[in-house]
Amino acid sequence: MAHKNRIGNLFSITSFGESHGPAVGGVIDGMPAGVRIDLEQVKQELARRRPGQGGVSSGRKETDEVEILSGIMDGLTLGTPIGFIIRNHDHRPEDYDHLKDVYRPSHADYTYQAKYGIRDHQGGGRASARETAARVVAGALAKQVLEKMGVTIAAQSTINVAEVPQGDTYGGVVTCVIKGVEPGIGEPVFGKLSSQLAEAMMSIPAAKGFEIGLGFDFVNHFGSEVLDKFVLKDGNISTATNHSGGIQGGISNGNDICFKVAFKPVATLMQPVEGIDNDGNPVTIEPRGRHDQCVVPRAVPVVEAMAAIVVLDNVLINRASRL
Amino acid sequence: MAHKNRIGNLFSITSFGESHGPAVGGVIDGMPAGVRIDLEQVKQELARRRPGQGGVSSGRKETDEVEILSGIMDGLTLGTPIGFIIRNHDHRPEDYDHLKDVYRPSHADYTYQAKYGIRDHQGGGRASARETAARVVAGALAKQVLEKMGVTIAAQSTINVAEVPQGDTYGGVVTCVIKGVEPGIGEPVFGKLSSQLAEAMMSIPAAKGFEIGLGFDFVNHFGSEVLDKFVLKDGNISTATNHSGGIQGGISNGNDICFKVAFKPVATLMQPVEGIDNDGNPVTIEPRGRHDQCVVPRAVPVVEAMAAIVVLDNVLINRASRL
Amino acid sequence: MAHKNRIGNLFSITSFGESHGPAVGGVIDGMPAGVRIDLEQVKQELARRRPGQGGVSSGRKETDEVEILSGIMDGLTLGTPIGFIIRNHDHRPEDYDHLKDVYRPSHADYTYQAKYGIRDHQGGGRASARETAARVVAGALAKQVLEKMGVTIAAQSTINVAEVPQGDTYGGVVTCVIKGVEPGIGEPVFGKLSSQLAEAMMSIPAAKGFEIGLGFDFVNHFGSEVLDKFVLKDGNISTATNHSGGIQGGISNGNDICFKVAFKPVATLMQPVEGIDNDGNPVTIEPRGRHDQCVVPRAVPVVEAMAAIVVLDNVLINRASRL
Amino acid sequence: MAHKNRIGNLFSITSFGESHGPAVGGVIDGMPAGVRIDLEQVKQELARRRPGQGGVSSGRKETDEVEILSGIMDGLTLGTPIGFIIRNHDHRPEDYDHLKDVYRPSHADYTYQAKYGIRDHQGGGRASARETAARVVAGALAKQVLEKMGVTIAAQSTINVAEVPQGDTYGGVVTCVIKGVEPGIGEPVFGKLSSQLAEAMMSIPAAKGFEIGLGFDFVNHFGSEVLDKFVLKDGNISTATNHSGGIQGGISNGNDICFKVAFKPVATLMQPVEGIDNDGNPVTIEPRGRHDQCVVPRAVPVVEAMAAIVVLDNVLINRASRL
Repeated sequence: MAHKNRIGNLFSITSFGESHGPAVGGVIDGMPAGVRIDLEQVKQELARRRPGQGGVSSGRKETDEVEILSGIMDGLTLGTPIGFIIRNHDHRPEDYDHLKDVYRPSHADYTYQAKYGIRDHQGGGRASARETAARVVAGALAKQVLEKMGVTIAAQSTINVAEVPQGDTYGGVVTCVIKGVEPGIGEPVFGKLSSQLAEAMMSIPAAKGFEIGLGFDFVNHFGSEVLDKFVLKDGNISTATNHSGGIQGGISNGNDICFKVAFKPVATLMQPVEGIDNDGNPVTIEPRGRHDQCVVPRAVPVVEAMAAIVVLDNVLINRASRL
Repeated sequence: MAHKNRIGNLFSITSFGESHGPAVGGVIDGMPAGVRIDLEQVKQELARRRPGQGGVSSGRKETDEVEILSGIMDGLTLGTPIGFIIRNHDHRPEDYDHLKDVYRPSHADYTYQAKYGIRDHQGGGRASARETAARVVAGALAKQVLEKMGVTIAAQSTINVAEVPQGDTYGGVVTCVIKGVEPGIGEPVFGKLSSQLAEAMMSIPAAKGFEIGLGFDFVNHFGSEVLDKFVLKDGNISTATNHSGGIQGGISNGNDICFKVAFKPVATLMQPVEGIDNDGNPVTIEPRGRHDQCVVPRAVPVVEAMAAIVVLDNVLINRASRL
Repeated sequence: MAHKNRIGNLFSITSFGESHGPAVGGVIDGMPAGVRIDLEQVKQELARRRPGQGGVSSGRKETDEVEILSGIMDGLTLGTPIGFIIRNHDHRPEDYDHLKDVYRPSHADYTYQAKYGIRDHQGGGRASARETAARVVAGALAKQVLEKMGVTIAAQSTINVAEVPQGDTYGGVVTCVIKGVEPGIGEPVFGKLSSQLAEAMMSIPAAKGFEIGLGFDFVNHFGSEVLDKFVLKDGNISTATNHSGGIQGGISNGNDICFKVAFKPVATLMQPVEGIDNDGNPVTIEPRGRHDQCVVPRAVPVVEAMAAIVVLDNVLINRASRL
Repeated sequence: MAHKNRIGNLFSITSFGESHGPAVGGVIDGMPAGVRIDLEQVKQELARRRPGQGGVSSGRKETDEVEILSGIMDGLTLGTPIGFIIRNHDHRPEDYDHLKDVYRPSHADYTYQAKYGIRDHQGGGRASARETAARVVAGALAKQVLEKMGVTIAAQSTINVAEVPQGDTYGGVVTCVIKGVEPGIGEPVFGKLSSQLAEAMMSIPAAKGFEIGLGFDFVNHFGSEVLDKFVLKDGNISTATNHSGGIQGGISNGNDICFKVAFKPVATLMQPVEGIDNDGNPVTIEPRGRHDQCVVPRAVPVVEAMAAIVVLDNVLINRASRL
């Protein structure tokens, strides 16, 4: 359940912030009361998102120090909203003057301008992946609640291409596994757990595809090949295979929830590219500064964060399913 | 923006109905006033969803006569909610007695039971694809509004498998193209148009994957290969290629919006399958009646309907983007 | 939490229907599963809303037979949405021809026209109190859930005026008491329980004022006179007085929740009134048919219904307040 | 449309902050793009809310310097969310040690504890009127948009009591008039403009009653006395009287929108009061520091702010009413 800059219902995050404005941040609403929070873990999650992960990304220095402004007292959540900010540093507005009236190909420059009639041209403004820092904070807190419920989330990235030409970029796939979700989570019909996960993942910058379980490979199989037969494990109903990815009819069945997200190559190349200006004239944009060649490793903690937000929200919603 | 049995914000559909209850139906809220409605088109859309499409599906006779109960007067929308029902016919509860205490593999029997502690075992109850009839009605009305705005939606199905064994089933892919959406539609960050389309599509029964533009194929290319370069078409800014599928940064860029949805094979086989009963004992379920071998052709109008609901909702929301 | 034709979040009702269209009805979403429903009670609640209550109202014959279309099987709720309709009878469109181009004073004729550019002029269309029948159905079901939790709701009406001139109308006050709500219900800040009750009550046709506890009389007292001192009752914390009406800081304190709703006089008089036509010309509207002289007694079950919807929704939401 | 710490749909504010935490603040989502913002006006609105208004209030020093963190560039709104914070100063946690395990009468101490099992006892925590500073910021921005549309909002306070005993407190009424709202604003049925205003006003701390137009006085009149007869003003349809307070059937009719809000006396007295501790033992609470004797004058800008939020949200929503 997402709307503009908010995602989630009973547990939600409303985020704000442009890449080169004073700060990014957000309000986490609906955090259950009485949860002991480890802020060190939040910092570690933010560190996983920073440039310089795994040698494939580089870029501006982001220290990402989060300041919690409310909702936590003496390390315990109060049940009230958690406001937080992460200051942006290293502003150099003049670095972006050449992009003020230019639309870069495969960026959001033109679409923001078309929508709002105005845009912050500095480092992508609101369209920058910088905003995902706020997601990671909310996800890190959600993860801590889920851990106490026995739910763990782990993602990893896979890269398909090899021998990347100097100055070019590439994408990749993030695979995520959620363990320990009890059967019964997710709202059938429009609020399917798979549907909400798809929404959440596709809201991550550069995400272009989503699969649950076998996903698109389902279409290469007959029904008899991909039925998940029931078995008893430790006296509980489970399935021998998990082609469905842990969800049936939109509701968790107790198995691992497995999904994949495809990310397109970074659109900012370290080579000249052809753009267009406000008046429709072609312009050549020379590369400046340093940019990520691939963001997929940095997307891993973001995928986990979004998964945590969706699952916690649905675990809470499910408390109202029965009398 | 979906929650339980509702999808959409300014234009929304809240649906109801079990497969073998008295009726399925819904309430369409937020239909703009003053739109001339052609009910014949609604019937045609419903006919496209019925069993018996393209020779690959078969099953119970569904006449699908929709009764509009409010919101339209003398063929014009009033701006008030449109309530509608489609009666279910051909009830034979005794046909389902053998499934009362049995969980079929890869069905929602077990997950509904786990969630609610109770379930309607007749023909899948609420988990049946029967509920998509309500989606088609809402989508058919949304389509008519969009057509007046120059937006058209067309989907088609593709089947990968061949020589289906007698009694087995298969899935497929539905490809959808939306033409005529003006630049600027969609809310960046959590409410990306691509994110909302993913949510809507993955809420369709049996949907297991979603791609926008190149989707998962993006990961096989370098950035320089998949940039959508700008060109002028009739004086308007457009792009020479459309790898992005018509959306940048979550916002439409004026190009065709192109996406794909993967559907898994039908889980009800026309051959004996192994299930499990409430007590965890294995049971063999013998095939009864006639069932669809493939639902993908029938999913085509449902995909179009969900696309229409999402796009219309976002077109209306976008009216508030600027002063 | 209301939006257009829906109220409630985890437990919600989305309603539809014009006064003289085929039917009114709605979809109740979020009803907890496994609740035994007594449909006879629903009928009784509808009967309390019908014309002819207490001798002060009269009008068209409304049989108000509700048909439940989904969500209940063998008398038990399934957790799935409950669709229902109540057919309108006694259509006589020609009775309203004289109102087609006329705006009656203190009715919604003009405002609907201004908003939508079109309106159903028959018996008030969507603005008719006829739509409250759908509220009563939802409320009657909510009441049954609440009763199982020990919560009861009872309202009554008070009339201030005496010796009503022949052909004139009057309003009154409905006082409502909710007993048995546990402490802790309601969301502080924007989602205060008092705030949600105010919203719900003011959404009833003709409602013009709302008070909780002492309400407007609070302004005639000093703080020292109206503090609700704590006492122990049966070992539980309670208060000796209940000036606050059972809510502190937006959250229930365990005491009776007491509020009042003011209803204006019926705007349809049984005497000639001056209206205006589409072109701004004055017109005299002669009385036709029979109409309620006072709707306040009929509003009593509607007030109770709205209270039940709000309280049940918040009881369910509160399940997520703590880990 | 309020939920937990958020109010509004297309234009919304999500707020956070405890009275003695590091800061209060919020995220304003849905601000239309391209609006020139005067931050000086925001400061002036905040100044109106500060302690020391009109000689009747006193208390801690609140400098209330708002820092805008996003959504505005070079004085123009970007259409992206506006994050902001107001630092709390003058923390002296030791001042509140005596209230750690004590419930004060007619405060939210007990209800927060009952709801969350934990509470911030310092200066009321989240229940403090301190949070209204965030409302004023959002309202000040909404007002500036509305002014460009010709809508103005003005409230004033009235006090009923006289000769307040030294150490006692009192409440009062705030009357608000909204001018310039075009006909057609507000969603009929559950989303009535009057209903949303009631919700918004009753969410203000200490609000206990709401009236639109004649409000409770309607019950002292016959229908014939309070009909608002139509007249033509400058060629436009208007009404000679405005008993209805500018709203018919939940929709604005173009007249001034007039409503009243009742506020109870401040619950913190400057004299000893009897409270109760966690274990149910009576305790006497001695007055400390300085507190407002009456908050009603300070509530005036908060009432205006909430009115602005509701009206702007509905003006934007209304853009989708017609094709």
